[in-house]
Amino acid sequence: MKNVIVGQSGGPTSVINSSLLGVYKTAKDKGVNAVYGMVHGIKGLLDGNIINLSTQIKNDLDMDLLKRTPSSFLGSCRYKLPEIIGNEKTYEKIFFILNEYEISAFFYIGGNDSMDTIKKLSDYGEKIKSPVRFIGVPKTIDNDLAITDHTPGYGSAAKYIAATVKEIIRDGLVYDYPQVSIIEIMGRNAGWLTAAAALSRGEDCEGVDMIFLPEVVFSLEKFLNGVERLLQKNRSVVIAVSEGVKLSNGRYVCELLDHVEYTDAFGHKQLAGTARFLAGKVAEKFGVKTRAIELSSLQRCAAHVTSRIDVTEAFNVGGAAVKAAFEGHTGKVVTLKRVSEEPYMCVTELADVHYIANVEKKVPIEWIKSDGTYVKSELIRYIRPLIQAEIAPLWVNGLPRHLIKKDKYGE
Amino acid sequence: MKNVIVGQSGGPTSVINSSLLGVYKTAKDKGVNAVYGMVHGIKGLLDGNIINLSTQIKNDLDMDLLKRTPSSFLGSCRYKLPEIIGNEKTYEKIFFILNEYEISAFFYIGGNDSMDTIKKLSDYGEKIKSPVRFIGVPKTIDNDLAITDHTPGYGSAAKYIAATVKEIIRDGLVYDYPQVSIIEIMGRNAGWLTAAAALSRGEDCEGVDMIFLPEVVFSLEKFLNGVERLLQKNRSVVIAVSEGVKLSNGRYVCELLDHVEYTDAFGHKQLAGTARFLAGKVAEKFGVKTRAIELSSLQRCAAHVTSRIDVTEAFNVGGAAVKAAFEGHTGKVVTLKRVSEEPYMCVTELADVHYIANVEKKVPIEWIKSDGTYVKSELIRYIRPLIQAEIAPLWVNGLPRHLIKKDKYGE
Repeated sequence: MKNVIVGQSGGPTSVINSSLLGVYKTAKDKGVNAVYGMVHGIKGLLDGNIINLSTQIKNDLDMDLLKRTPSSFLGSCRYKLPEIIGNEKTYEKIFFILNEYEISAFFYIGGNDSMDTIKKLSDYGEKIKSPVRFIGVPKTIDNDLAITDHTPGYGSAAKYIAATVKEIIRDGLVYDYPQVSIIEIMGRNAGWLTAAAALSRGEDCEGVDMIFLPEVVFSLEKFLNGVERLLQKNRSVVIAVSEGVKLSNGRYVCELLDHVEYTDAFGHKQLAGTARFLAGKVAEKFGVKTRAIELSSLQRCAAHVTSRIDVTEAFNVGGAAVKAAFEGHTGKVVTLKRVSEEPYMCVTELADVHYIANVEKKVPIEWIKSDGTYVKSELIRYIRPLIQAEIAPLWVNGLPRHLIKKDKYGE
Repeated sequence: MKNVIVGQSGGPTSVINSSLLGVYKTAKDKGVNAVYGMVHGIKGLLDGNIINLSTQIKNDLDMDLLKRTPSSFLGSCRYKLPEIIGNEKTYEKIFFILNEYEISAFFYIGGNDSMDTIKKLSDYGEKIKSPVRFIGVPKTIDNDLAITDHTPGYGSAAKYIAATVKEIIRDGLVYDYPQVSIIEIMGRNAGWLTAAAALSRGEDCEGVDMIFLPEVVFSLEKFLNGVERLLQKNRSVVIAVSEGVKLSNGRYVCELLDHVEYTDAFGHKQLAGTARFLAGKVAEKFGVKTRAIELSSLQRCAAHVTSRIDVTEAFNVGGAAVKAAFEGHTGKVVTLKRVSEEPYMCVTELADVHYIANVEKKVPIEWIKSDGTYVKSELIRYIRPLIQAEIAPLWVNGLPRHLIKKDKYGE
C-alpha cells in the first residue's frame, strides 16, 4: 500500500485519538508511505482539508501525548453523505481526491452515523470497482453500536461517570439534613452510560439509589414515589437519570421544561434539563434541598480519567483496521468480541458495515430491574471489566499535557 | 493534654480530610490520649454526636485513604452559634460537654463562617477563664479568607477547574462550525475559583477567551460585544463566568432566570443558572450553537484531581493547629504565609480569629483587566504554584477508593 487516509467523525471521546494513533502507528510499521488525516472528517476531505500526519506526530512523546488528548485531534463533523443515486458527483469528487493522494485505504473512526459513510463509500467503490479499501473503526461513549461487544470510548466515560458519582455521593452526605441530588448523564436512546452510575456502589460507597434509563418508559409518579420511600430511610438520596428518558406519550422529560432545542444534521434533538426538571418536582413536593448535576460534555472529554483497558482497545481497533485493509477487506467495521468473561479478554473481529451503520444497540430489557428503577447485576458485570486500570496523564506545570494540531507544515 | 476534639464545618473540599488527618496524627504523635470528632460540627457536639477517631483511623492505609477522600469525613453543618449575650445556656452546654470529655483543645476546620464559631467559643472561654484552647483550621475552595495567603482546598479546586477547562476547550474545537461554551464556576462574591480558568492557557491550549468575576459589575452589553468580537476570529469561544456575577442594579445575573432560590442558615442564596442565562442570550443574538456547563459540586468534591501542594498544606495547617494549642494559644486561626515566590515556599503562622471570622477576601481589582473581561498575569502567578504536583488516587477495582465513617465502635 502506498498511502492511507484516516478521519474522525461524530462526537469525540477521551480515547478517540488512541484509535487514531493505532491507525497511524500500525500503518507506518507496515511500511505505508504517508498517513493522511482528513481535517473535520469527510467534509474536510471534500474541501481538500487534508494533512500528512507525520507533520503532527514526530516522536514517541507526541504519540504518548496524542493517546492522552481528548476530543478529536483531526476535528470532527456531523456530515451525512447523500444517497449515491442522484448524487454521483459527490462520490466522483471523493474518489478523485483519493486517487490524487494515491490512497489505498480509507479509515473512519466513528459511531453508527459515521459508519453510514463507510457503507456508502464502500458500496460506491464496489460499484466502480475501485481498489480503495474502506474500513470503519468503532468509537462512541454511547456504546450503542451493533455486533461489537462494546465500543472504545465507553469504558473511559463509564469510569469517569462512576468515579465522579462516587464523589458526588460522598459530597451529598456532608450535611445532616435531607438532600436529593439528581445526576443527568448522556444517552439519547441507550442507557449504557447512565447504567455506569451503578458501579459506584461498593465496599466504600452507598451507590446511587435509583437509575433511570431511556429503555424504560419514565413515570413521574413512580419516580416521586421512589424518592419519598428513599427519603424515609436515607439522609441523602442520589439518582442517576439519562438525558433521554421519555414519558409514555413519547415526549422527552426535558421537553417539559422551557428551553432552546437544537437539531443537528442527523436530526437529533439537544437534550438537557431532565435533572433540573426532576429536581424542581422533588423540591416542590417534598420541600427538601435538591441539586441537579449535568455531567455535560465532561463525560466525553475528561481524558484525565481514562481506563487503560479502553485506551488499549481503542488503539487495537485502529491497528486492526489497518491490518484488515492490508488483508484486502473493505466495507467492514472492526468489532470487539469478549472471548472470556473471567478473566476478561477481548479480541478484534470484522463485521459487515451494513449490519452496523445506522443501527442502535440498546441496553437489553432483561438487564434492567422490572420496576425500571435500577439495573441488574448482569449489566454491572458487563461494564466492570471495561473501567479497569488507569493511564495517568502526563502532568506538566500542574496540568495534563495535550497534543494539539499544528499547521500542515507541522509548525 | 489529655483529649482534644475536632470538627469540620461549612462546604467540603477535596482536601479537608487531609487537615483532619493533620490534626489527628499530630495530636497522637504528641501523646494526646483521645482525639474526638464532632459528627456534623458544633451542631453534632451539642447533640452529643461524638466519636473517637481511633475507631475510624486504624492504620497507615486508613490514613492514606482519608487524605484522598472528598467531602467532610465527620460530616459538616452550617450552624451559626447565637450571640453569647442572652444565649449563655448554649455556651454552658458546650463547655459542659467539653468538660465531660476532658477536652483540652478544640479544633474547627472551616471557612470564614466557621471561624465565627472559634471566635465566640474562645471569647466565652476567656470570659469564664476556661483552660480549653480554641484554634481554627482554614479551609475553603473559595479562597476568601482574610490574612492567609490562600486557603487549603483552593489549590485542588483550581487544579480541577483548570484541567477540566482545558478538556472543555479541546472538546469545543471538535466541529467546524461556531460554538460558544459558557462555564459557570463557584464563587458568590469572590472570583478566585473562576480566575483559575486562566491557568488553562499555555503551550498546548488556547485558554478561555473571557473571564468574568463577581468583583466587577457585569454588563450584558459588554459581554455580548465581547462574544461578537471573538466569534469573528475564533471558531470556538469558551468563557468562564462566576456564579456570583451581578448587574449594576445589584441583582445576580442568574436571578434573571426563573428558578428556585434557596437560602441557608447564613442567609446565602443558592446561585445557579448564570451560564444558562448567558448561553440563551448568545444563541438568541448570534444564532450559534451554545453550551452551558456548570461545574457544580464537582469542583469541591473531585478528589481524583488534587494538588499535592494543597494536600500537604492542608495536612500542615491541621498539624500546626495542634502545635499552637500545645504552645498555649487560643482564639487563633492557622494561616499560610508565602515566604518565597520563586521558588514557592509557604509556612504556617497564627492570626487572631477576630480578624478572620466573617471577613471575605476578594480578588484585588488591580489583578483584573480594566475592562473586566480577563485577569492579569499577577493573578495567574499567584495561583500557579498552588496547583503543582499530584497525589494519585488509590485505585481499587477501577475506581478511587475512599475511607468512610464506621459506627462509633468502628464497625
